[in-house]
Amino acid sequence: MSDLKVGLAGLGTVGAAVIRMLERRAGDLAARTGRNLKVVAVAARDRTRDRGIDLSGMRWYEDPVALARDPDIDVFVELMGGADDPAKAAVLAALDLGRPVVTANKALLAKWGVMLAERAEATGAGLHFEAAVAGGIPIVKTLRESLAGNVVERVSGILNGTCNYILTRMADEKLAFDTCLAEAQRLGYAEADPTFDIDGFDTAHKLAILTSLAFGTRVDADAIYVEGIRQLTLEDIEAADDLGYKVKLLGVALRTETGIEQRVHPTMVPKHWPIAQVSGVTNAVALDADAVDLTLVGPGAGGDATASAVVGDLADVARGVKGFVFGLPVATLMKAERAPMQRHEGGYYIRLSVVNKPGTAATIARRMADEGISLESIVQRRPGGLQGEAPQGTARVILITYATTEEAVRRAIAAIEADGVVSSLPQVIRIEKD
Amino acid sequence: MSDLKVGLAGLGTVGAAVIRMLERRAGDLAARTGRNLKVVAVAARDRTRDRGIDLSGMRWYEDPVALARDPDIDVFVELMGGADDPAKAAVLAALDLGRPVVTANKALLAKWGVMLAERAEATGAGLHFEAAVAGGIPIVKTLRESLAGNVVERVSGILNGTCNYILTRMADEKLAFDTCLAEAQRLGYAEADPTFDIDGFDTAHKLAILTSLAFGTRVDADAIYVEGIRQLTLEDIEAADDLGYKVKLLGVALRTETGIEQRVHPTMVPKHWPIAQVSGVTNAVALDADAVDLTLVGPGAGGDATASAVVGDLADVARGVKGFVFGLPVATLMKAERAPMQRHEGGYYIRLSVVNKPGTAATIARRMADEGISLESIVQRRPGGLQGEAPQGTARVILITYATTEEAVRRAIAAIEADGVVSSLPQVIRIEKD
Repeated sequence: MSDLKVGLAGLGTVGAAVIRMLERRAGDLAARTGRNLKVVAVAARDRTRDRGIDLSGMRWYEDPVALARDPDIDVFVELMGGADDPAKAAVLAALDLGRPVVTANKALLAKWGVMLAERAEATGAGLHFEAAVAGGIPIVKTLRESLAGNVVERVSGILNGTCNYILTRMADEKLAFDTCLAEAQRLGYAEADPTFDIDGFDTAHKLAILTSLAFGTRVDADAIYVEGIRQLTLEDIEAADDLGYKVKLLGVALRTETGIEQRVHPTMVPKHWPIAQVSGVTNAVALDADAVDLTLVGPGAGGDATASAVVGDLADVARGVKGFVFGLPVATLMKAERAPMQRHEGGYYIRLSVVNKPGTAATIARRMADEGISLESIVQRRPGGLQGEAPQGTARVILITYATTEEAVRRAIAAIEADGVVSSLPQVIRIEKD
Repeated sequence: MSDLKVGLAGLGTVGAAVIRMLERRAGDLAARTGRNLKVVAVAARDRTRDRGIDLSGMRWYEDPVALARDPDIDVFVELMGGADDPAKAAVLAALDLGRPVVTANKALLAKWGVMLAERAEATGAGLHFEAAVAGGIPIVKTLRESLAGNVVERVSGILNGTCNYILTRMADEKLAFDTCLAEAQRLGYAEADPTFDIDGFDTAHKLAILTSLAFGTRVDADAIYVEGIRQLTLEDIEAADDLGYKVKLLGVALRTETGIEQRVHPTMVPKHWPIAQVSGVTNAVALDADAVDLTLVGPGAGGDATASAVVGDLADVARGVKGFVFGLPVATLMKAERAPMQRHEGGYYIRLSVVNKPGTAATIARRMADEGISLESIVQRRPGGLQGEAPQGTARVILITYATTEEAVRRAIAAIEADGVVSSLPQVIRIEKD
């Protein structure tokens, strides 16, 4: 039985978990793939750090590019992270030598996916990245291989565990956003600077990759409309609950008549949807295709879960599995026509703080009607009835619209603001339906 | 670009859907796989039936074995069904020629899986069967490929849409079992003779295959304890609901100290589990492994969903993907040590119809204590309080036990029956927990 000699760059939590998993499962993996998966060389910054793994017998590199070029490795595993060098240079070095690459690096693929796929195709090297999206959930393989016979219509996912943890705690324990964020930071689920997670950029990176796989388009993270969860209040989450919805930060890619709509924003999801039930740091992806609708739920991060995806990819490499990086040859990937957000169609939740005087609701309803927006419900509440209390002399008006366009909603809100009946910034949450 | 010439036996709903999907997606599949997937020959009993597909240009066989041996096909697709000949003979004929086979036939694999895998290995032919378990859900690929680095601890699935449809309607609309079964038959979800579905045999076939993939054991459907849903009453479903559970027909395979426990029975599942929320004919599989816990939800049957899985397998064949039939070489598959059901450990729901006289609850509680069974709750209700009314002069006692053994429960119930306090057959439902 021949060896599959692995060179692994990045010895953080995931890197160490991959090395441990390969050791623990060596016999089984050899039986499954017909090859011995062996880490023969590693690259990291600090050689002396105790990682709880035995690195003796592995060649040591400080430069990951040098590791990627080591003539005595069969596959390069990139677990350093970062959208640019050194990760990018190292991955390119391996691909240019025709050497398969396994990576967990979503930022790299979101930014450089098309270029990397071109280089991989040019040399025939495989580029595997199951771990880059939704951690331990096999969503890349499902889209790239299992759904080959399908036309995908929509992908929607809870792709960031930090955000889902915060939203779950807010809903379950009736806590404010700031409290839950602090708790997430204390538990290590959120960074000291949480921007990347809670403002939706991490979700957008993953969505960009899923969109390419699902719709056969060129990865284009810049085409994504991104809105995070910072503005969400407990009041909105409770109001959504009363109306039969959960609020989730979703990444959604949708086939429309004007192109592929890609968006990341807080979303009201019907409670009976499988992804509505997904709580805590767990991730989920729902795929609506012409032949099947699937939902996959599982861990989106963590050393073992991510290692599971990396090792699954390594087993594919060992078995000689090949395929196009995004499922299709790069030349056939379409430019992702960016469906403008103004044309987004759907239902809306709109919460307004209004001056508490007669006729306010009528004014609001008329502005909606002027834009052709039909209302499913309009509820005016006096202060004190809800957890998020309105200031003295004001009231809340909560509207649920039937399907309309983003443009109409924005115009109607602008008109209402111009009417002078609104006392603070309106809250708008999009509703996702079947 | 070369053709992948497909010979397809069985032109029912699924067969026709596969042919339509291959035509509809021809260009995309060719781009993905580098080959033209073309059905060149078919076998079915009746040539004249209108299936809404164009069979001209395809060779016609009445004998599927002859089709499987057609020298001018590259892959044989078996969609006839049935555990024995002609499906078995046709699949063997193809495998013996080293020709890859794609099948949706769970009964065949549950009965002959090991033998077929041996023959496939002997000639190097691939045997693909994503469609055989849970229809459009990519559970075979997930277990066989994605989770290669994991040790699986438990597989639990809603694998029969008919049963889940009946249980969902009972729970949602407070209807009796017979009413829901008749409705399922009217809608075509259940056969005129529903035994195969509602008595759990269909679930057992699928579980046998999942067990082999998950635990590296030899497929052994005879090792499965099987109990169907016929005995379930609305009263039980409502009582479960009150206690925070849904009742599902689950197939469960579990690693225990005494071997792999395989069982199919009505199960009380905590409401917050993703599979508890799965309603109607939808299927779901939950995998608990050492590195990841995954739940996959999707369509378990239907022409398009099953075709999706078949076409996914054909795309793998076209890309030259190979692997062992059950993930591992047959020689390394272990004999599934049958963990006897008496040793099953878990919580139990026990509903007793008892003689309505003082001391009955005490008698029951004592018998439980005698067997070392701790009770989480014991509730005695007089007739009329619940939908399923107890006969005059009797009452209901509903017990929930903490984890105990099947043996202890059976002995305790036998002792209670011997005490003469029970007026009809006890109902026992096992509880599944984290």
